Parts: sequence; C-alpha cells; structure tokens
Amino acid sequence: MGLKTLVPIIAVVGLLVAFCLASWIKKAEEGTDRMKEISGFIREGAMAFLKREYKTMAIVIVVLFLLIGIGLGNWTTAVLYVCGALLSVLAGYFGMQVATLGNVRTANAAMESGMPKALKIAFRSGAVMGLCVACLGLFGLGMVLVVLGQATMVECVTGFGLGASSMALFGRVGGGIYTKAADVGADLVGKVEAGIPEDDPRNPAVIADNVGDNVGDVAGMGSDLFESYVGSIVSAVTLAGVTAAEVAEKGFNITEGSFILFPMILAALGIVASIIGILLVRGKEGTNPAKSLDAGTYISGVIVVIGAVLLSKAMLDSYTYAFAIIAGLAVGIAIGKVTEIYTAAEYASVKKIADQSQTGAATTIISGLGVGMMSTLWPIIFIAVAIFIAYYFAGIYGIALAAVGMLSTTGMTVAVDAYGPVSDNAGGIAEMSELPEDVREITDKLDAVGNTTAAIGKGFAIGSAALTALALFVSYAEVTQLTQKGISLLDPLVIIGLFIGAMLPFLFSAMTMNSVGKAANQMIEEVRRQFREDKGIMEGTSKPDYAKCVEISTGAALKEMVAPGLLAIIAPLLVGLLLGPAALGGLLGGALSAGVLLAIMMANAGGAWDNAKKYVEEGHFGGKGSEVHKAAVVGDTVGDPFKDTSGPSINILIKLMTIVSVVFAPLFVQVGGVLTNLLG
Amino acid sequence: MGLKTLVPIIAVVGLLVAFCLASWIKKAEEGTDRMKEISGFIREGAMAFLKREYKTMAIVIVVLFLLIGIGLGNWTTAVLYVCGALLSVLAGYFGMQVATLGNVRTANAAMESGMPKALKIAFRSGAVMGLCVACLGLFGLGMVLVVLGQATMVECVTGFGLGASSMALFGRVGGGIYTKAADVGADLVGKVEAGIPEDDPRNPAVIADNVGDNVGDVAGMGSDLFESYVGSIVSAVTLAGVTAAEVAEKGFNITEGSFILFPMILAALGIVASIIGILLVRGKEGTNPAKSLDAGTYISGVIVVIGAVLLSKAMLDSYTYAFAIIAGLAVGIAIGKVTEIYTAAEYASVKKIADQSQTGAATTIISGLGVGMMSTLWPIIFIAVAIFIAYYFAGIYGIALAAVGMLSTTGMTVAVDAYGPVSDNAGGIAEMSELPEDVREITDKLDAVGNTTAAIGKGFAIGSAALTALALFVSYAEVTQLTQKGISLLDPLVIIGLFIGAMLPFLFSAMTMNSVGKAANQMIEEVRRQFREDKGIMEGTSKPDYAKCVEISTGAALKEMVAPGLLAIIAPLLVGLLLGPAALGGLLGGALSAGVLLAIMMANAGGAWDNAKKYVEEGHFGGKGSEVHKAAVVGDTVGDPFKDTSGPSINILIKLMTIVSVVFAPLFVQVGGVLTNLLG
Repeated sequence: MGLKTLVPIIAVVGLLVAFCLASWIKKAEEGTDRMKEISGFIREGAMAFLKREYKTMAIVIVVLFLLIGIGLGNWTTAVLYVCGALLSVLAGYFGMQVATLGNVRTANAAMESGMPKALKIAFRSGAVMGLCVACLGLFGLGMVLVVLGQATMVECVTGFGLGASSMALFGRVGGGIYTKAADVGADLVGKVEAGIPEDDPRNPAVIADNVGDNVGDVAGMGSDLFESYVGSIVSAVTLAGVTAAEVAEKGFNITEGSFILFPMILAALGIVASIIGILLVRGKEGTNPAKSLDAGTYISGVIVVIGAVLLSKAMLDSYTYAFAIIAGLAVGIAIGKVTEIYTAAEYASVKKIADQSQTGAATTIISGLGVGMMSTLWPIIFIAVAIFIAYYFAGIYGIALAAVGMLSTTGMTVAVDAYGPVSDNAGGIAEMSELPEDVREITDKLDAVGNTTAAIGKGFAIGSAALTALALFVSYAEVTQLTQKGISLLDPLVIIGLFIGAMLPFLFSAMTMNSVGKAANQMIEEVRRQFREDKGIMEGTSKPDYAKCVEISTGAALKEMVAPGLLAIIAPLLVGLLLGPAALGGLLGGALSAGVLLAIMMANAGGAWDNAKKYVEEGHFGGKGSEVHKAAVVGDTVGDPFKDTSGPSINILIKLMTIVSVVFAPLFVQVGGVLTNLLG
Repeated sequence: MGLKTLVPIIAVVGLLVAFCLASWIKKAEEGTDRMKEISGFIREGAMAFLKREYKTMAIVIVVLFLLIGIGLGNWTTAVLYVCGALLSVLAGYFGMQVATLGNVRTANAAMESGMPKALKIAFRSGAVMGLCVACLGLFGLGMVLVVLGQATMVECVTGFGLGASSMALFGRVGGGIYTKAADVGADLVGKVEAGIPEDDPRNPAVIADNVGDNVGDVAGMGSDLFESYVGSIVSAVTLAGVTAAEVAEKGFNITEGSFILFPMILAALGIVASIIGILLVRGKEGTNPAKSLDAGTYISGVIVVIGAVLLSKAMLDSYTYAFAIIAGLAVGIAIGKVTEIYTAAEYASVKKIADQSQTGAATTIISGLGVGMMSTLWPIIFIAVAIFIAYYFAGIYGIALAAVGMLSTTGMTVAVDAYGPVSDNAGGIAEMSELPEDVREITDKLDAVGNTTAAIGKGFAIGSAALTALALFVSYAEVTQLTQKGISLLDPLVIIGLFIGAMLPFLFSAMTMNSVGKAANQMIEEVRRQFREDKGIMEGTSKPDYAKCVEISTGAALKEMVAPGLLAIIAPLLVGLLLGPAALGGLLGGALSAGVLLAIMMANAGGAWDNAKKYVEEGHFGGKGSEVHKAAVVGDTVGDPFKDTSGPSINILIKLMTIVSVVFAPLFVQVGGVLTNLLG
C-alpha cells in the first residue's frame, strides 16, 4: 500500500462527510403538511425525470460501450467508460436527492428559526452535491490507479473521462432544456396571461418549474463540473509520461508515476480543503450570507495553495509546478469576479441596460448583447495569462495542472453553486404553502445571494471547461503523435477544421435555443388547456394537473437533446475519419476558442438582463409594470435560454468533442482521413 | 512592353466606361425643383461627410506612412501605402458622386418613363462605383508592376494593401455608424414618437438618413470590397515566388513572373466580363428587375470561368489553377444564395421569425438569433470545400487564387450591391417631393430587389473577406518564415493568440454597437429639440434644420470609429511585439474563424429580422400596427446595427489585422516577442 491508496481513501472520507451532512439535513423538520405535499411533488417530478433520463442514458452507454470496444478493440477503455458514466449518474442522483430534501427544510428553518439555520441547511444541501461530484470522481480515478495499475490507467483512463462527458451532455443540455421550457412556459401563461404571481400553486407548470431548478441547476451543473474535474485529472495523467521524459532529459529523476499521482493527491487535498470550507459556512443573524460563502471559498483556496507548494516540492522536487496550480485557481476566482462585475446590479453594466430599457426593448437587447460581448475581454486575458504562467513554469503538463488547480476546490464551488437552486426552491415552497411574509423575506435574501453565486458559478464552469478542454486537446495531440509535427494553422486541413470547429458552437446554440422554444411552446399549450378546461383551477377550487406538465418538460427535454447531443459526438468522428487527425485538431481549436467566447457572451448577457430586470423591479425607472419593466422583461426572457441552456451547454460541447477525439484518436491515426489521402 | 502593360490599360478602359456611364447618367433629367433641392441636400451632406472624413484620414495616412517608413525602414512600402489609400479614397469619391447624381434621376425616370429606365439609371449609378473599385484597384497594382518592376512589387506591395485596408476601416466602420445613427434616430423620433411616415420631409434627420445610405452602403461597402479585391491579388503576388519554386521542383518551368501576372490578367478579364455584364442589364416592362440583375451576374461569371481555363493553360501550362478560381467564384455565388434563403421572406426562416413574433418581442429575438446562428452552417461548409479544392489543385497559391476568382467580377458585384441604396434614395426623394403614388410604387419595387441584393452582397463581402484574410494569412506565414516551422496550435503562445484573436471580433462588435447607440442618442435628442423649439416644423410651415442632423451623424461617426479602429491596428502590433510572430499567427487564425462566424450570424440575423418585419407589414399576423408588428419592429431595430454596422465591420477587422501583420512582419521577426523571449 502506497501513497496512491490514500486517494480513494480520502474520497471515501469525503463521501462519509457528505453522508453525515445528508443525515443531518434529513433530521431537520419538514414543516406543515402542505409543505410536505409540495416538496413531495417536486421530489417526485425530479426523480421521474431522472428515471426517464436513465433509460435513454442506458442506451447511449451500451452503444458507446460497443463502439469503443469494437471500434478500438480496447475493452478495458470500454469498461472504464461505463464506470465514468455510472459515477457521474450516481453523483447526480445523490445530489438531487438531498437537494430535494433540503429545499423544504430550508423553508421550514426560515419559518421556525430564521436566517442562519436556513442558510446552513440550504448550503449543506448543496455541499452534498459538491462532495459527491469531487469524491465520486476522485474515487473512480483512484480505484483505476489502484486496481488496474499505472500502465493500464494511462492507456485506458480516457474512457473514464468520456463516460463523465457523455453523461454531462444529458445533465447540462437535457437539464437546460427542461428548466427553461418549464420556466418560460410557467411565466408566459401564468404571469403574463393569467396575471398570477410567480410560484402560485394554481399554475399547473409551477412544479415543473421548481423541478427544473433541481434538474438543470443542481444535477446539470454538477455533471458539467464532474466532467471538468475528471477531465482535468485524466489529461494530467496522459501527459505524465512525456513530462517525465522531458524532465529526465534535463537531468532530473522524477518518475511518470509521480506525475500521475501528483494531481490526484492534490485533488485529494482539495477535498479536504473543501470539507473544511464547507463546515466553516454558518450564517449569523444580521450578516450578509454572501460573506459567509465567500469566506468558505477563500479558506479552501488558501489551503490548496499552501498544500500545492508543499506537495510540489515533496513529490516533484520543485516548487515550479505549484505556480501552474495557483495560476489556475486564481483565474477561476478572477473570472468569477469579472462575471459578478458584468452581471450584478451594483455595477455599471446592469444599470446601463436598465437605463437603455427606457427607449424600449430593442435597446435593452442591443445593450445587453453589448455587455455580453464586452465581458469576454478580461476572462480571455486571464485565461491567456494562466496558460502563459502554467506553460512557463511546467510545460504542457502545466496546462493540465492549471485545470486541476482551478477544479481542486470543486467540492466547495459546487456547494456554493447548488445552494442557489435549493434556496430558490425553498422560496417557491414558502410561496405555494402560503407561509408568512417574513419567511419569504428570508428565502428571498438567500435566493438573491444565490443568483450572484449562480452567475459566478457559470463563469467558473466556462473557465474550467476551457482549461480542461485545452488540457485534453494537448493530450489529443500526444495520443495522435501530432506533438512533434504540430497542428499547424498553415495546413489547409487544419484551417478547414478550424472553420468547422468555430461554426459548431453557433450551430449547437441555435439547436438548443430552438429546442427550448419548441419545448416551451408545448408547455404553454398545456397550461392554457388546463386553465381553459378546468375553470376551478383559477378559482382555487380544483387542483391543476402538475404531473402532466412535469411529463411534458421531461419528454421534451429528452427528445430535444438528441440532435445537439448527436452533433457533439458525430462531428469529431466524421471530421477525424474524413479529414484526419490534423483537421480534427483544427476543429477542436476552433470549437474551443469560438465556443468559450460564445459561452461567456451568452452567460453574461443573460445574467445581466436578469439582474437589470430585477433592478427595475426594485423601483428604478418606473418599477414593476412600467413600460421600462416590460422592455427589461424581454431582455430577461431572451437571456433565459442564453444563460441556462445554450451558454452552459457549450461547455459540454467543447469538452465532449475533445474527449471523443482523444478516445478515438487511435482509429483516426490508423485511417488517416479518407479525404486527406486524396491530398497525398 | 509586354503582357503586363495590358493590366493598367484594361483598367483605364474600364474607367473610361465608368466615365461614359457617369456622363450618360448626368445627361438624364433631374426632375422638379423640389427634387433638385432635396437631392442637393443629400449630395451636400454626403460630400460634407467625405470632406470631414478626409481630414481624419489624412492624419492616419501620415502617421502610418511614417510608422512604416521609420519602423520598417522601407520607404517604398510607405509610399505604396499612400498610393493604396489614395486610390481607395478616389474610388469612394467617384462612386458616391455618381450615386448621389443617380438617385434623383432614378426617381425622375420612374415618373417620366417607368420601370425600365429607372432600373437602368439606378443600376448604372451602382455600376460606376463597381467599375471604380475594380479598375482603380487593378490600375494601382498594374502600375506598381510596370513602374517598379517585379522584385520591388513582391517586396513592397503589401503596403498598397494596407493602404486599401486602413481606408476601408473609415469607410465601413465610420459609414456603418453614420448610417445607423441617422436611421435609428430618424425612426425612433419620427416614426415612433411623432407618428410621421418614413422619409417625411418634416423629419429633421431624414436627409442624414438618406446620406447614410450613400455613406454606408455605397462608399463603405465599396471600400470593403476594394480592400478584398486588392488584398487577394497582393496575397497571390507574395506567394508567387514559393509557388514557382515548388513547381520547379516538380520539373515544370514556370517563372515567378507568370504567377504574379496570372491573377492580374485574370482580374483584367474580370473587368471586361463585368463591363459586358453591366451593359447587358436593362429592365423590361413587366418583368422582375431581379432577373435582369441576375442575368448580368451569371454572364460575367461564365466569361470569367471560360477565361480562367484558357488563361490557366496558356500562362501556367496547366488547367489545374482554373479549378481554384472557379471554386472561389462558385462559393461566392453559393454563399449569396444561402444568404437569400435565410433572409428572404419567400423562405421558411423569415416566416418563422414573423410567426414567433406572435408571442412577443423576446421570441422574435430568440428565433432571429437562432436563424442567424443556424445560417452559419452552409457558408462555412462552402468555404471549407473551396479551401480544399483550391489547395488540392493549386497548393497555398490556390487559396489566393480562390479569393481572386471570387472577387474577379467585383465590378459587377458592387454594381448590383450599390444599386440598392441608389433605389432606396430614389424612393426617399420621391416621397419627400410628394411625387405621385405610382412613382413610389416603381421605386418601392426597385428598392425591394435592392434589399435582397444588399443581403446577398453582405454574404459575398464576408465570404471574400474570409478568403482574402486567409490568403493574406498564408502570405504572413511566408513573410515571417513560419511556413516551415508551422503555426502550431500546440504552441501555448499560438493558443494564447487564438483565444485573444477569437475575442477581438466580440470586443469590436460590442464597441461598434455601443457607438451606434451613443450616436443615435445624440441624433434623437437633436430631432426632439427641433420639434420642441420650432412647432412650425410639424405643421409644415417652417423647414427643419437638416444640416445640423447631418453634422451630428458626421461628427459622431468620425469620433466613434476611433476606438475600434485603433483596436484593429494596435492589437496585432501589440501581440506581435510582445508575444512574437507565432502568437500573432494564432491571433489571426482565431480572429478569422470567430470573426467570420460572428459576421455571418449578425448579417443574416439582421437581414432576417428586417424582412420578417416587412412580411408582417404586408399583412401577415395582423399587419402594420398590430402587437406582432411591434415585436417585429424590435427585431428589426436590433438587426440594424447587426447587419449594417457591426457585422460588416468585422470584415474589415480580420483583413486589416492580417495586412497590418504582413506589413510589420519583418519587425516582429526581428524583435521575436518581448515576452516570448522569457519562455526561451
């Protein structure tokens, strides 16, 4: 037993902590019968979605299992693919279970004992998701190393990454379509046509809307970061061999094994740091809950920084590797901060959008798109600086390390992120159960903080997707042996790939936006039908058919995600087989660069529109119901699929296409490109 | 005297044809005193803008002249820079002169003798611009070859390209801001607030709006294509040497001179083909004017195809080079066709946007953005196919040839394109002069065709910008001697460049959109002020102060274009000097790929919104004044800066950054990148 067994052990410890937190949450009171009933609906809806999703997932898992096994003739990779997929599913399942237990208990705590307890329950519900993501990911990778050994791990671990990626596609894209179809449907008929408030129990789509928060913002976001987390470590593992060889040339004697183990030990440290951070978050009466969350984040960050420096010296005999890790971690935080500046109402951009709404919806849209586009500047500069530092101090391995560093505190980051939808749900339950006004005030305060953390979380998810995809891209070059030859932009095939790659995020976004539109239309018609056919619903004498709306969202989401999902898997396969590995390299570069830009733009424009609307609702420029408010609502509605469906889905697109390329690289090298062979 | 003297001679012949067309137009009647007065205002406004613009341009010319001369120590390049700039300015000056003569005569012909004559005058006004662009461009390049000789041309002709590019920045960006500031300002106060129809003479901004059509859609578009036209030939010239060497290795004996002369002779042939096409356009009573324009375009295309095959064999001893040219020409036409499918009301996309407008402005925007994003698929596939064919048949030289092929019929393409704003102006003059209803019907019909040709022209401009920038990118690699080493995406500096490059079109678009917003706001306030301070304007008893509005548009456009303009020039210089030639190569690749996508998306979304609004106005979904119409108007207003400012300006950004990089390449190679040196 060596250092490596420590990896799965710490992961298990983290899981135990998550289990304790879950039990602690479960022990809290659920509140009134009405609250129990409503939270029961939400939980049932969420679980119904998961079950339907699992059926589709099972098909994909079997197909890809066979495709890998037969196509590559490597059944170990195929089995690891299944493991990666199952662990991703498990993380989502546990996380969502607890999130749907936590929402009602948060509402009840807000009623019975006030803000601090409510914050604690909401945050710890998120923390279970966070710990599940990090610990299940690291547990899987650790077991691969311990059980299969180093050589097999290097050869086959990309399958594990692909498993995480393909499930994230379901989580993020399917979840994104689900949540926005329900949200838009509930809003357009409920708020606009029937004139009833948000979360009114008479709205048939209200349960679907609350389920959507869990499906999209808890499970979807979790699967996205699970993919990044696993992907960054997978990339570091695949680059360990070259790095060891390079270092040996310079006269240092560090084994490949050390380079493999280092990111995993670092991740284990990150789990410990996250646990400490999580346990330190406890609200105080009268203080801003955001401060408490920030403190937890910073503390776990500091622990990782110190640990990185010590581990770097101890394991790799040099402090330099720590710089790459710190660069990644710092960029993650910096991107979050920039996101906040462009999307929070305290800053100029959001106010400007609200101001521009005075001349109508058109100027709301133009200024919001302007803000989104402008907001790409600093994140890109930060990513560029991180790449520069990481490479300067640790070579191409450093790029993977930067991604690992950024994601090391995933446990904490996801906890903060998933706290948002739990609070949001708590507010919904409070509203639907007609709890006193002051309860809703507490949940609103929690929710407001959640909106900011959600926006920051989106920035972080994009940043981590960018670094992870880049690290996997380097692994791709290694596997295809293009490292020596290079993937040159002067090769016309690479340029062709670059153009096609840059086009894919646009196409993918168009598809996901259209999907939301279609699904939302179905929802709108169903809600209208229920109001029309049963007048008792609006009078409050009969109950709407919540289940039907949940079913529509579920069915539409699963159906609509097929086309974009296939695009993400087929595009790299097609280009790799027809045009060869170099063109595919160009495609990955094009998709990565254009995709990150489009994702940042969409996420931040969406976040800014959302908060501009809220800013107007607070009473600026005429407040609720004014013409300015109507214009701001248009911005918010456009922003919904931007920030919650298309934008985040691009993260998956760029990572999934890269890992598909890495896994099937041997095949592309063998075939060499059917059309490329024409060019001689 | 050899074949090469034929090049400037044919260019001069083309200019003589342009002169004859201009005289023919001038001879036509101007119509009533009122018409003369109004067209005088427009002409004065346009010329006033040009004069102010020349002052700013003069500063830029002097600064860049010194920068090139001192920075590179190459004063021949510096002088050629001035030549390129001056010829671009001349083309814009002549073209706009005639366009502002043609508009009123078109209106008068519509009144006096009907559609065929009106079409002929409008089209021939555009044709003068078209011939000026092609002939002045080719004349300049031909004279460089004849006067300075082959060796100096190869060394210094990039300066000529930079001259064309830097002036295009003024034309496209400044013109784009001008035209939309005036348009949005006139619409928002005139149509929406005061409730007077479009082109109503009581609207103080109406003249500025009509001037904007000339400034943006005639001169701006012309300078854009002048830049592409010159750039494509410049690129072919710089690649001639390598190509000759490559061919020699294969045992063929074709001189560098032949490879230089071939694209120029082809361009000369294109001018002849364009003249034939232009003279064949004559409307017939009762037929669709679009057919006549299409016929001219196809005939000149066929002439170039036949000529390319013969010239390829005669000059380069192989038919293969013709394939590259034909590929470029075909892609230009194909992109135009796709643009039409996504932006014309006859097809499904525009109808879908109109349909979606029934659920409000938000769904108008979402579906329009979806259409814009979706519309990127086929143009990119076509460009990829063209690159593949061009390279397969003629190597990297083939990529330049494809661009030359696409642009060979520029005379005809610009003629069709510039015909639109002339017809639009004619309609405006008819309205303001209160000509009979049937005159307006004729000009409306001409204008409707102009809208489609404008959308196609935008697609063509983007496609040609993409191929030209790509060809210049290859030249850049040649000049920096990166061809052997490659610009590899696995070099972290290249990746950093790629990210920064992909970000620049987003930043640039944000800046230009904000500029339109600011300029439009100034216009809005001025129009409001005039209505407020002089009640006689609305009553028709006193005349509005047109000149003041023209002045505001002019001042705002020239002021607002400084920042994006500087970005386009400084970004490549900064990255080249700090990170070195390879990183700059990455930047150009990133900007090219992301920029083309964003430009297509914006241009087509804008075009589709515009026509969706018109489709509703034709009586669908409730017609004018309905809620659906209001929603469609929001889409159209968002689309205005998309399709007429930011989208087309991206063409300039990608070409200008590439040519700046080519010209200053020796400097970057010498310095090697201040930060790169750190990486060792």
